[in-house]
Amino acid sequence: MNVTEDIIIEEQTPLTAEMLSKVNAYWRAANYLSVGQLYLRDNPLLKEPLKLTQVKNMLLGHWGTTPGQNFIYTHLNNIIKKYDLNMLYISGPGHGGPAVVAGTYLEGTYSEVYPEITQDTEGMKKLFTQFSYPGGISSHASPQTPGSIHEGGELGYSLSHAFGAVLDNPDLIVACVVGDGEAETGPLATAWHSNKFLNPLADGAVLPILHLNGYKISNPTILARISGEELEQLFRGYGYVPIFVEGSEPELMHQAMAAALEQAMHLLKQIKYNAYEHPNSVHSKWPMIILRSPKGWTGPQEVDGYKIEGTFRSHQIPLSVSAADPESHLQLLENWMKSYKPEELFDENGRLMPELADLAPKGDSRMGSNPHTNGGLLLKPLRMPGFMTYAVAVPEPGVKGEGDVHVAGRFLRDVIKQNPANFRIFGPDETVSNRLEAIFETTNRQWNTEIKDHDEYLAPTGRVMEMLSEHQCEGWLEGYLLTGRHGVFNCYEAFIHIVDSMFNQHAKWLKTTREIPWRTKIASLNILLTSTVWRQDHNGFTHQDPGFIDHVINKKSEIVRVYLPPDANCLLSVMDHCLRSYHYVNVVIAGKHPSPQWLDMDEAVEHCTRGIGIWDWASNDQQCDPDVVMACSGDVPTLETLAAVSILKEHLPEIKIRVVNVVDLLKLERKSEHPHGLTDHDFDELFTTGKPVIFAFHGYPWLIHRLTYNRTNNPNIHVRGYKEEGTITTSFDMTVLNEMDRFHLVIDVIDRLPQTGSKGTYLKQKLQDKLVEHKQYINAHGEDMPEIRNWVWTN
Amino acid sequence: MNVTEDIIIEEQTPLTAEMLSKVNAYWRAANYLSVGQLYLRDNPLLKEPLKLTQVKNMLLGHWGTTPGQNFIYTHLNNIIKKYDLNMLYISGPGHGGPAVVAGTYLEGTYSEVYPEITQDTEGMKKLFTQFSYPGGISSHASPQTPGSIHEGGELGYSLSHAFGAVLDNPDLIVACVVGDGEAETGPLATAWHSNKFLNPLADGAVLPILHLNGYKISNPTILARISGEELEQLFRGYGYVPIFVEGSEPELMHQAMAAALEQAMHLLKQIKYNAYEHPNSVHSKWPMIILRSPKGWTGPQEVDGYKIEGTFRSHQIPLSVSAADPESHLQLLENWMKSYKPEELFDENGRLMPELADLAPKGDSRMGSNPHTNGGLLLKPLRMPGFMTYAVAVPEPGVKGEGDVHVAGRFLRDVIKQNPANFRIFGPDETVSNRLEAIFETTNRQWNTEIKDHDEYLAPTGRVMEMLSEHQCEGWLEGYLLTGRHGVFNCYEAFIHIVDSMFNQHAKWLKTTREIPWRTKIASLNILLTSTVWRQDHNGFTHQDPGFIDHVINKKSEIVRVYLPPDANCLLSVMDHCLRSYHYVNVVIAGKHPSPQWLDMDEAVEHCTRGIGIWDWASNDQQCDPDVVMACSGDVPTLETLAAVSILKEHLPEIKIRVVNVVDLLKLERKSEHPHGLTDHDFDELFTTGKPVIFAFHGYPWLIHRLTYNRTNNPNIHVRGYKEEGTITTSFDMTVLNEMDRFHLVIDVIDRLPQTGSKGTYLKQKLQDKLVEHKQYINAHGEDMPEIRNWVWTN
Repeated sequence: MNVTEDIIIEEQTPLTAEMLSKVNAYWRAANYLSVGQLYLRDNPLLKEPLKLTQVKNMLLGHWGTTPGQNFIYTHLNNIIKKYDLNMLYISGPGHGGPAVVAGTYLEGTYSEVYPEITQDTEGMKKLFTQFSYPGGISSHASPQTPGSIHEGGELGYSLSHAFGAVLDNPDLIVACVVGDGEAETGPLATAWHSNKFLNPLADGAVLPILHLNGYKISNPTILARISGEELEQLFRGYGYVPIFVEGSEPELMHQAMAAALEQAMHLLKQIKYNAYEHPNSVHSKWPMIILRSPKGWTGPQEVDGYKIEGTFRSHQIPLSVSAADPESHLQLLENWMKSYKPEELFDENGRLMPELADLAPKGDSRMGSNPHTNGGLLLKPLRMPGFMTYAVAVPEPGVKGEGDVHVAGRFLRDVIKQNPANFRIFGPDETVSNRLEAIFETTNRQWNTEIKDHDEYLAPTGRVMEMLSEHQCEGWLEGYLLTGRHGVFNCYEAFIHIVDSMFNQHAKWLKTTREIPWRTKIASLNILLTSTVWRQDHNGFTHQDPGFIDHVINKKSEIVRVYLPPDANCLLSVMDHCLRSYHYVNVVIAGKHPSPQWLDMDEAVEHCTRGIGIWDWASNDQQCDPDVVMACSGDVPTLETLAAVSILKEHLPEIKIRVVNVVDLLKLERKSEHPHGLTDHDFDELFTTGKPVIFAFHGYPWLIHRLTYNRTNNPNIHVRGYKEEGTITTSFDMTVLNEMDRFHLVIDVIDRLPQTGSKGTYLKQKLQDKLVEHKQYINAHGEDMPEIRNWVWTN
Repeated sequence: MNVTEDIIIEEQTPLTAEMLSKVNAYWRAANYLSVGQLYLRDNPLLKEPLKLTQVKNMLLGHWGTTPGQNFIYTHLNNIIKKYDLNMLYISGPGHGGPAVVAGTYLEGTYSEVYPEITQDTEGMKKLFTQFSYPGGISSHASPQTPGSIHEGGELGYSLSHAFGAVLDNPDLIVACVVGDGEAETGPLATAWHSNKFLNPLADGAVLPILHLNGYKISNPTILARISGEELEQLFRGYGYVPIFVEGSEPELMHQAMAAALEQAMHLLKQIKYNAYEHPNSVHSKWPMIILRSPKGWTGPQEVDGYKIEGTFRSHQIPLSVSAADPESHLQLLENWMKSYKPEELFDENGRLMPELADLAPKGDSRMGSNPHTNGGLLLKPLRMPGFMTYAVAVPEPGVKGEGDVHVAGRFLRDVIKQNPANFRIFGPDETVSNRLEAIFETTNRQWNTEIKDHDEYLAPTGRVMEMLSEHQCEGWLEGYLLTGRHGVFNCYEAFIHIVDSMFNQHAKWLKTTREIPWRTKIASLNILLTSTVWRQDHNGFTHQDPGFIDHVINKKSEIVRVYLPPDANCLLSVMDHCLRSYHYVNVVIAGKHPSPQWLDMDEAVEHCTRGIGIWDWASNDQQCDPDVVMACSGDVPTLETLAAVSILKEHLPEIKIRVVNVVDLLKLERKSEHPHGLTDHDFDELFTTGKPVIFAFHGYPWLIHRLTYNRTNNPNIHVRGYKEEGTITTSFDMTVLNEMDRFHLVIDVIDRLPQTGSKGTYLKQKLQDKLVEHKQYINAHGEDMPEIRNWVWTN
C-alpha cells in the first residue's frame, strides 16, 4: 500500500519578497566567489579597476555546473533552516568545487577548518588564489572541501554514496546533485534503483536533484535532449515522483525551487508517516527534483561571436583572459563579476553582510559542518565477539574443513548481532553462494519491494544489501564507511575488477584525508574475495582472474593490505584484525569449498600475527639450512605445496625442506616500501640467501617477482601461479593446467637440486606419467582420480 | 517528427494449430537437449530406464534461464524464416549455454563446426557429456558456441555488444536477450540509451528481449518486482515501445510471443520506412519485448517439499541426482525428461524429425551460422593513408610540437575518409578534449536525438560515437569489432580502469578464439590513452593513474601489446601498425599537449620498428661502453631524461651516457615470456651487464622491475615513475613530486657514479637548491620558472 502519490503543493511562491531578494543576493555572493576562484589572484573585491596582473596566469577550472550548484546550495540552506533538517550535500557533477567551496566559505565552515582563509578581503584573496593552483585545491568537491564525502573527478558514484550514507541514519537527508553528464554512466544509471532497498523508518532519505545542465565537455547530454514526456516516464519508472524546476529567470526560478523543496519535504514527511502507520508497506515513491537551468547560468552570454551561456562552451573557462587575448576580455570579466554587485554583498572588509550571513544554518546544521561528512567523528568501534570461539578443531594438520568462508560466516553473524545499525554486509547476490549463509540466522537481506512466497531471507530491514551490481555494493559501502560505520563487501574474485576504478578513487581519498589534519580516520574498506580463480568448476575461464591484488598494491602502501589466509582459523584471525582496523583497504582472499585445515587456533593467531612464517611441522630442515624452500600463499597453493612436500618426503627423504607460508602478502616487500615489509635480514632468514625457493602463489606469478626483485635470493626464486590457463574443470586440474600442481612442484625441486641424482630423475619420470594418467582419468570420468580426491596430509 | 507510435497488431493468434504444435515440439526438443546436457553422459534418448551411472558425477550448470531462451530462440527461427531476416542472437543472461548449444545443434550448425557431434544418438551423447565437463564446454554461450559474439559470465555488456554489432549493418537485426539479473548492472542500465545513437537508415536494429525470469542466484530481481506500471514507464522513458508477453501456459505463450514478434517486426519496418521518408526525423521509439515467464519453466515443480519452478531454486541444478540422493530423484529426472516426449521429437537414431528440422532457417540464415558472428569472415583490411605523409618536420631534436595526439588526429581523419562503414572512433565525450578534433573535418558525432543551434559536430550519421560511459564505448567497439569491423577507443588514461573487467573478458575471448579452428581473426581492439597521469594541470590526483598497463600485461602475451611513443612521428608509426594488426589489444599511450619532438619520420619508423633502441644523437658513449644508461619510456619521461642528459653533458662532460628509449614496452620482457621480448643477449647489449641504468618510466616504477627482474643487470636498474603523488599542478612539478624530474635523475646518476667526485657532489647540491627554488617559484607564480618553461634540447 502506498499513499504518497504526487501531492501538488498549492503555494507556488513560498518566498516573501524580502526573502526572495535575500536568497538571490546570497546566490549572487556564491557566484561572485566562484568566478573569483576561477580568475583572480588579487583585487578580490574589485575595489580598483581590474588589471591583467591580478588575473591568474593559468586559468583552470569549470564554470558550467557552478552557478546551478550555488543555486541549489542556497535553497538547501533555506529549507534546512526552515525545518531544522539534518542534511548533507553531495556534489555529483565533475567539477563543482567552486560552488561547494563558495557555499562553505559563506556559511563560515571553510574558515573554521582553514583559519588562514579568513572571512575578509585577505582571506578572500587567498581563497581565490589557491583554487586550481599548484599545490592548492582541485576543481572538485575534494577531500579538502569541508562537507564533502564525495569527490568529483571520476563520475558516476554520487547516488550510491548518498544511499550508503543514509542507511541506519533515519534522521539524515542527503541532497545529492546528479549531473546529467554523470547520469550517462552505468553505475549512476542503475543507482536510481537504490530506492527499492531503503527502509523509510530505519534509514534516512536521499533527495536526488538531477541537474539538467544540458551539456558535457563538448556534447549535449542525453537526458537533456529526450522529450519531457520520456524524461518524466523514465524517473517514474525508476520509482520517483519527479518535481520539475525549469527556466532561467532568477526570480521565477527561486520561487519554483523553494516550492519544489517544500513539496519534496512534504512527500518525505508523508513517506515517514506512512511507514510508521503501515510498517509493512513497501517501495515508497520517493521525491526527486529535476532542475533544468542554463549551463554557465549568469555567465558571459557571448564572447567573440560565440554563444556561451546555455551551451557547451561554458563548461570550463567561459572567457579567456591573458595577454594574448583582446583587452576587451579583461573588461568582460570585470563586468561579469560586477554584475553580481559585490558591494551589496560584502562589506568594506570583504565580510558577507550580516543579513545575508543570517540565511545560513548555524553550527552543525551547516552542510559543511555536518558531522556525517567527517565520519570518524561519529565512528564507534565495533563490539567484537571473541573470534577464537569460532575456531575449528584441528587436532592434526590436514583434517578436512567445511569451507573457510563458511566458518567465517558464523563470526560475521555475531558481529552483526552485536552491532545493530553500525555494520552491514554488501554483495552482488552472492552471500549465500559465497557460503556466508550463517549470517541469515540473525538477519535478512534488506528489500523494500514486493516479497513473495518462497523468497528467502528478505525483509524490510536487514544487515545484508544485495544488488547484482558490484558498483552499487562498493558505492553503498563507501557511503556507509565515509559517514562513520563499518562493513564488508563480499564478491567473486574475478568480478571485483568491475570496481577497480572505484577502489582507485577510494584509496586516493584515504591517502589524501590522512594528510588533512581536520579529517578523522574512518573504518577500513574490507573486501572479502572468494569463489577464487582455482575453484571455478562450473564457471570456467571467464571467472578466473586473481589480478585485483596487482591492481591494489599500486596504491600507497600506507593504505593497502592484502591477506591470503590458508585455512579457516587463519581467516578468523585475519577478519578480526581487519574489522578492527582504520583507514585501510583490506583485501582478504579465502576459499569457500571444503579443504584441509592446517593450524589450530593458537597456531593460527601466532602465524597471522607474524604474517609470514616457517611451518616447522611440515618442514624437515630441523630449523637449520634447508636444501630448498617451499613457499606458498593462498589456500590451493598451500594444499599443493604440502602435497608436494609429502611426495618429496616419501621419495627423496634426504632433501631438507623448509615450508614457508605467507598470509600477509606485503611482508614480502622491503620494509622501506611497505610498513609490513620484512627487513632484508628477516627475509634472508626465511628464504635463505642462495637456496632454491619454489613459490606456489594464488595469483599471477610475476607479482611475487615484483615484490622480491631486490632481495638477495631473487635469482633463485621460482614462482608458480595462475598464468591465464583455464576452463571448466576441477580445482586440481586447474593447478595442472597452470603447472602449480604437486607433481610440477616436485619436478621443479628436482630440476633445481642436482644432488637428487638418478633417484630424482626416476621420480620426475614417474610424476610426468602421473600427469598423463591424470589427464586420461579426468577426461574419462569427469572428476579427479581417487588418489587426488582422497589425498590426506600425513607427517 | 515521429510516427512510429504503438501500433497494436490485431492478430493475437498468428500461429495456425499445426504451426503451434510444431513450434511447441521444437521448443520441447530444445528443452530436452538442455536437460540432457545438464545431467546425462549416456542413454541420451532414454531408450532404457535411466541408471545412476548414466548421470554425470558432478552436476554443474544452470537450468533457470534455459527454457525461456529456448522459447525465444525457437520463435526467432520462426520469424527469420517468415520474413527472411538477417538476424543474430545475443544471450545476455549468465549461463544460457545449454539453450544456445541446443538451438544451434537442432538447426545443424553445431555439427558443421564440430563434426564429431553428429546429429544422431552417438553425437547427442557427446553433446551431453561435454557440457560443464572437465575440458568440455562452459555453461555460457562461450566462444566455442557457434553464433555467439558474447559470452555470459561477467554480466552487463549484452546490449552494448548488440548495438555495436548493428552499426553500419543496415540489414542486420540483433535479437538481444537481456536477463533481469544482468539488467541490474550499471553498464546494462545505461546501455538502453544506445537507441539515441542508432541511425535507422545506416544502421541495423536491435530487438531487446528483456527476460523477466524473476530471480538471480538467490534473490528476486528488481525489475520483476516493481509494478507493471513502473516497468512500462521505465522502458517508455528509455525510449522503447515495450511489448509484453506474460504467462506460463505454453499454447497461450506461443501465440503471444509470435504476435509480439510480428508487432516488433512491423514497428521496425515502420521505423525504416519513416527514416527513408523523413530522413531528418530523430529518435525513433524502438520496439522491445518484455517476456515474463517462470524461472526453470517446464522443470520440476517441487522437490523434497521445496517449490522449484518459478523460484530462485531453479537457478542452477534444480534436482540433485547422485548416490547420496533419494532414488526418487533419479525417477523425477527421468519423468521430467520424458515429459518432453523425446520419441515424438527424435527418430530411432536420435535425429530430429524432418518436419521439425524444417522449422529452422537454412544456411547462413541460421543464427548459429550468421557470418556476422564470426567477424573475421567479413573483415576487410582498412584502406590506409600513407602515415608518413602526416609527419611533422623535425629538423633537429627538441623542436616544439603541437601535441602528438593532435597530429595523429589528421591521420585518423583520413582513415575515416577512406573507410566508410568499416571504421569508427569511440570515446566518452573526449574526442575534442583529447585533441583529435581534425576528425571533425570529415565526419560528425552520430546523434539521433534533438540537435540544437550552437551544438557542434552532431549529425544523424557520423563515425564518432560519444557517450559519457566508458562501458558503452568499450562495449560498442567490441560489438563492432566482433562483427568484422575496425575501430579505436580514445580515453583519459586514468578512467580506462572503468573497463578493466571488460578488457579482461575481451582478452579472454581473443585468447580462446585463437585456439578454435573455425573462428577467424578479428581486428585488434585499439585503445588510445591520453590526458595522462603527468598532464593533469587542472584535474589533479583523481585523474592520475597509469596502472592500466599493469592490468593489461597480466593477460596472455600473444594478445596484448603496449606502446609509449615519445613523439608525434613515433605515434603515427605506432598507430599505423596497430590499425593493421589483428586479434590483439593494443594500448597506445600518448600526449596531447605541445611537447618537444625528437625523431624525423624515417628515424621514427626505424625506432618504432625496433621498438626499443639507443638514441645515438643524445648519447655520448660513442657506441662504446657507457658509464650510465639513461632509459626512458613515455613522452614526459623522455623529456626529463633528455633534460637530465643535457645537464650532465654540460656539468660532467666526462661521463659517458647512453640514452635508450622504449616504445614497445614488452621488448623488456624475455623472449620466452612475450613474442616481442628481447633475447638476453640483445637486452644486455642495450642495458649492459653491470652499469647503472636510470630508467624514467611513464607508469608505476615497479612494473619495469617486474619486466626485468630476471635480466643480468637487474640489480643495477633504478626506476623512477609515478608513485601515487599528485595534485593540481604543472607537468614538471608532477615529475618533481614523484622524483622523476631532470634534477632527481641527474642526482640519481651522481649517486651511482663515485667517479664524479667533488664535481658531482657540488652539482648535486646545486640541483637540490634548484628543487627548492622551483618549489618557491611555482608557489609564488602558479607556473614553472622560466628555465623550465623555456628549456630546449641542444646537443
